[in-house]
Formats: sequence, structure tokens, C-alpha cells
Amino acid sequence: MEYTPTLPLVDDESASPRVKAVFDDIRATRQTDFINNFWRALANDPANLERTWQELKELMAPGTELDPMIKELIYVAVSTVNNCTYCVRSHTAAARAKGASDAQIAELQSIVAAANKTNRLAIGLQVPVDEVFA
Amino acid sequence: MEYTPTLPLVDDESASPRVKAVFDDIRATRQTDFINNFWRALANDPANLERTWQELKELMAPGTELDPMIKELIYVAVSTVNNCTYCVRSHTAAARAKGASDAQIAELQSIVAAANKTNRLAIGLQVPVDEVFA
Amino acid sequence: MEYTPTLPLVDDESASPRVKAVFDDIRATRQTDFINNFWRALANDPANLERTWQELKELMAPGTELDPMIKELIYVAVSTVNNCTYCVRSHTAAARAKGASDAQIAELQSIVAAANKTNRLAIGLQVPVDEVFA
Amino acid sequence: MEYTPTLPLVDDESASPRVKAVFDDIRATRQTDFINNFWRALANDPANLERTWQELKELMAPGTELDPMIKELIYVAVSTVNNCTYCVRSHTAAARAKGASDAQIAELQSIVAAANKTNRLAIGLQVPVDEVFA
Amino acid sequence: MEYTPTLPLVDDESASPRVKAVFDDIRATRQTDFINNFWRALANDPANLERTWQELKELMAPGTELDPMIKELIYVAVSTVNNCTYCVRSHTAAARAKGASDAQIAELQSIVAAANKTNRLAIGLQVPVDEVFA
Amino acid sequence: MEYTPTLPLVDDESASPRVKAVFDDIRATRQTDFINNFWRALANDPANLERTWQELKELMAPGTELDPMIKELIYVAVSTVNNCTYCVRSHTAAARAKGASDAQIAELQSIVAAANKTNRLAIGLQVPVDEVFA
Repeated sequence: MEYTPTLPLVDDESASPRVKAVFDDIRATRQTDFINNFWRALANDPANLERTWQELKELMAPGTELDPMIKELIYVAVSTVNNCTYCVRSHTAAARAKGASDAQIAELQSIVAAANKTNRLAIGLQVPVDEVFA
Repeated sequence: MEYTPTLPLVDDESASPRVKAVFDDIRATRQTDFINNFWRALANDPANLERTWQELKELMAPGTELDPMIKELIYVAVSTVNNCTYCVRSHTAAARAKGASDAQIAELQSIVAAANKTNRLAIGLQVPVDEVFA
Repeated sequence: MEYTPTLPLVDDESASPRVKAVFDDIRATRQTDFINNFWRALANDPANLERTWQELKELMAPGTELDPMIKELIYVAVSTVNNCTYCVRSHTAAARAKGASDAQIAELQSIVAAANKTNRLAIGLQVPVDEVFA
Repeated sequence: MEYTPTLPLVDDESASPRVKAVFDDIRATRQTDFINNFWRALANDPANLERTWQELKELMAPGTELDPMIKELIYVAVSTVNNCTYCVRSHTAAARAKGASDAQIAELQSIVAAANKTNRLAIGLQVPVDEVFA
Repeated sequence: MEYTPTLPLVDDESASPRVKAVFDDIRATRQTDFINNFWRALANDPANLERTWQELKELMAPGTELDPMIKELIYVAVSTVNNCTYCVRSHTAAARAKGASDAQIAELQSIVAAANKTNRLAIGLQVPVDEVFA
Repeated sequence: MEYTPTLPLVDDESASPRVKAVFDDIRATRQTDFINNFWRALANDPANLERTWQELKELMAPGTELDPMIKELIYVAVSTVNNCTYCVRSHTAAARAKGASDAQIAELQSIVAAANKTNRLAIGLQVPVDEVFA
């Protein structure tokens, strides 16, 4: 069964000028005509579309504290813990586009898995924080 | 109120030879006499202590696909999503010890936060996966 | 691939009298003959079916502290964070049936997203609780 | 800093007759005069107090499908994944009171940890469900 | 043991002009001199501080699709599922300041609890989405 | 839409000797020729494949502290909270293969659901840990 989104995807024709301006900026920034479904769904709340695009555009761009490929890998790690299929798939693709190899993606997932394991052990055993970490 | 762990922390005196061997390897690998509480709590299940230490020792060492400092940042990202106080604190300290700056830690948390935001939007709006990501 | 549930959906013919009594009450309360799959799956544990239906019937009814439509929006918010596809879809439909507009659903998701973002920042940065909130 | 609960704990003196009836039943069922803070907090919503106590009383009692000690271990497993300090501590104590050994609690946490690890690998690598499990 | 935040709280004296501008806007908007720790921790990443404050200021203000008190209750619901102590406490206080009664807060938590219960049942039993919700 | 995994499933022909050795051990241990997709996906990181198989082989075998069927039920409980479709389905099948009845699986899910409910109440109401549990 294919599911529809809970709010309609906004296509170019029905986009308001405010939405269209964001779509134009996405296209210019990414140098592609393709707008993925995430942004078309967000367009139901133009203020949130603007804020979220601006946030990702600034955060994920080259020239900040961390390398763009590394930032995509961190995004994949978070998306994996949150179990967001859409986000795991789209950000794994983005990491690849920015140079991540299969071996790096496999290692990333091994670290995510190990961290999930030790997180639960620290919680389940109620390990007290060592003074040196407090 | 200070909480005790749900299983006793195993000190050096009461460590079995099997546990002592792991503690020795932790000390040798990290070049410090200090064993943090996490390993002392895990020592209640020596097989799990052995497996988990071996796993982290291999995964987090230099010379793999990703840089050691980056691997610690990924660990912090996962620990933040899982809300593990012990792990956020100990792995933020480890990231710093491996060279992470305050600005990099702050940016990491900004990315974790943004990913959590967009993860929920993709889920809440039930955004269909674009064919290009399928 | 379509997945089967892990326990069989109980249809009207195979329902025990105890299950049938709950199905009858669902039909009478909702004024419809339709019983959705959730209740048919729960019917494998009649005591849990009774308790859970009674709980939702009381909690989600008009006449309590919060408006029925608002209660459905809260349900959608929780289901989004827990990433329950079935629940996001069925309770978004219920919120609409009780009067929620597309704009309200979009705003709800923007708030859920923002809360997820700031939740992680408070955790990741280990922000101490201000005395005024303690 | 000690935190107050977000709603007042209801003591015996201020309990309404409806709340008092539940407190009496907790005391009679558990054969102790002690009412732990969880029920005193829930008493702010007497209907929820009644429902929740009735649910746990039925579910966690001897004589159902699973052994009472096993049911407490399952409760600890869920509470660990949800990171509920109160629940990990109180249900680990309950498991012990029903006969769980330190070695069983340690093994439980090793399984919880391993499951968390493999859960994330299945999600992060987007492993397709084998036909035999569909 | 009191924990320090993982990045220093930025006080008024050490705030850069960019941070100071946000602090000033928080004070003006809320009509109070008090800046809570959350914003002081975020100030380590001024761009994120600006974006996050702007987002909350717009989203949580009166005059949008949902009532300000309801929006705070939704925030509390999400923060409860994410187990963010800081956020549960600060947004429960905000909900009260905007008019929420104890009875409404208690009912909110009863709904959050019921939703968490039914979310897991839908997932654990792998309930197929009814066609009417697809 | 069927999704591909984010890393290729490793078939027998393309398996390296190191991967083949693990596949052989899985076949010998389980007394079946069938290797499920999870292991084929993990094979992209042979070290992680070895570690994870060894861990599950040891933990889930007969002869440890808890009964093998109970250990599978605990695995299902964790997988349900983490919302891992693959894991809920495969470990429910494993629990059945080790003797779990439909009634036991239904009761398990009722306990998981109740625990999720009370976990959130303890968190949302910020219930202080009783001294006896501290």
C-alpha cells in the first residue's frame, strides 16, 4: 500500500510567492531543478519552510567548523537513532554525494550501533557519573 | 539524592582474573591507571565486559575509516538523542581529549538539533520517499 | 511487500463474547459499523482490549479538561515522536474529523519539530535546570 | 538540586475517597503500608490512577501467561530503553523481590544492549524484511 | 553531584554584540530581565541562538493557529516523550503561566501516557494501516 | 515502493573468506542453509559482522541465566520500543520457534504497552525517586 502524506505536497503551480522564493533558492543553492518531497510537504507552513531551509542551508554548507561530508554522516547517525526512513535514505545519499565511501558509511553505522549499546548499559545499570566527567 | 548503580561497581580487589585482564588492557591501551565507572558496572557480566571493551577498542582506535575525534563526535550525537547523561558527558570529554574545540562541539549539537527537527517533520507529515532515494 | 500482523486480526465471526461486547461498544460509541485494525489486533488479549478501549473512550471523549480536537492533536504529537505510522495516520484523521484544519495540523508539526530540536539542545549541552524551574 | 514533581504528591490526609480506595487496594494487594511516589503523583487524576493501578495489578500478578519475575524483567527492559530512572530503579527492585539474581539482571541488560545495537543496524542499513518474516 | 554544562553558560558580561542583541530581544519580548540557562548555553553558537530564538518567538506567540497555552501543552507532551527534564519543567511552568490548570496538566499527561501505550501496541503487533487511513 | 538497503546485501559468491567463515558458522549453529538479510547487510563491515554474530550466538544460546524463549521475548520488547520492523518481525518468529505461544506474545505486548505508559507518567510528572529505590 502506498501512503499519501498527511498534508498535500505543494507543486510548483500551486506554490505561493513566499513558497516559490524558497523553492527558487533551493534550486539555485543545489544547482538542480529537483525539489524533493520533504520541502514540498513543509510548504504547507511557509514560515516553517523558510526557517528550516535557512537553517539547513547555513548549517550544512562548506566553510563551517566541521567538514560537509562529516556533517551529513552526523545527520545519518541521528536519523538512524530516530528511525526516520526518509532521512536515513536522503542523508545517506547526500553523504555519498559529498564523498563518503561505502566503508565509511558501514563504519558510521557500526559506531551508531555500539553507542546505542553502551548508552543502554549506562542507563540500565544506572552508572554514576565519575567525578572527572561531572 | 545520590543514586547507587543497580549492580555493584566492581573494584580492583574483588575483580576476577577475567575482569582483571580487561581492566589491565584498558589501562595499557589508555595509558592511565583510571578505570571509569562504566567498566566497573559492566564487570558484573564478564563476557559482556570483554565483548564491549573489545568492540570499542577496535572501533574507536586511530587507523580506521573515520578520524578518532570525528568518531567521538558521532558518539556524542547518538548519546544526545538517546539522552544518556553518562555517555554525553564522557564522550564529550573524549572528543575534547582528541582535539575537538568548543566551536566544533557547539556546531555538532546544532546539527543534532536540526536533524531531530527535520526527522520529526518527515515522520509527522508522512513524507513519501522520493524515487531517487528509494 | 505487504506485512501481516504478528498476531491475527480478530474478525467478527471468530470474536469471543467478551471481545464482541467491546466491538459492540466501539460501534455504538462511534456510531459506525467500522472497527479499525488496531482493535482487531488487540482482541488477541481480551483483557487488554477492554482496558485500552475503556481508557481511550473515557480520555478522548468530550467534556473533560481539554477540547476533543486538541486531545487528538496531542495524540498526533506523541505518535510523531514515537514514529508510529499507524497512529500518526489514524489520529491525524481523527483530529480532522473533530475539526482540525490543515493549517492547525501544519502548525502542530512545526511545534513538535521545534520541541524536538530544543529538547536535544538542552540534553546535549547538559543545561542545568534554573532554580526557578526546580 | 532536588526537584519537586510537576504536580503535588497526594498524601493520605488530602486523598479524596476515590483516591483513598485505590491506596487501600495497593496496601492490601502488596501487604505493606508503603505507597510509593508514583501512585501519589498519579492521584492528581483519580480516573487515571484507578485505570493504571487496575492495569498493573492484573498484568503483573501471578497466574498469567508469563512468570511474575520475568514480567518485571521485561518492565526493566522497556524502562531502560525509555530511559526512565524512576522505573528502572523501582522495577529492578521489584524483579529482585520476586527472585531475580544479580546475574540475571546483568544478563538482561546485556540482551537489552545487544538488541539496541542490532535494532539500529537494521534501521541504519535499511535491511529489507526477508520474505519468511513478512 | 551538580553537573556543569558541556559548554559554558554565557553571562551578560562575556556576551558578544550578536548574542547581546538576542538577549535584549528575549528580555523585551518576555518583559522580564531573567534569561534562563537554555539561552545562555545556546549562546556558544550565536547563529543557532538567533535561529532558535526567532523560531520559538514566532511559533509560540499569540495570534497563530493554536492557542498559546495549548502550544505549551504540546511542547510538554513532546518533552515528556523525549525525556528532557529541563524542557518538561520549563514548559510546564510556561503552560501554567499561560493559564493551564493542574487538572489540565494532569489530563495532558494521561493522554501522553495512553498514546505511548497504544503507539507500542500498534508497532509491536505490526497492525496494518487500514485503507481508510492510507 | 520497495526500498533497497543503503549498503548492498553480500551474497555467498561475493563474500570474502572472513565473511564466509561467519556465514558458515551461522549455518552450522542454526542448522539451516538460510542466511537472513540482516547478516548479509552487516557483511559490509566484516569486523562488525564477526563481533555481532559472536555476541548474539553467545547471548541467545541455551544454558545462560535466562531461558532462550524468554530472551527472545525481551528482544521483541526492546525492538518494539525502538520501532524496528525488521527486528520485531524476526525476533517474534524466533520466539515462536523457541516455544512462545500467541497468548504469551500478546501478554508480552500488553506489558510493553503498560510500561511505556507508566514510564511517561513518571517522567512527565517528574516523580521523585523514593528513598527506598535510591
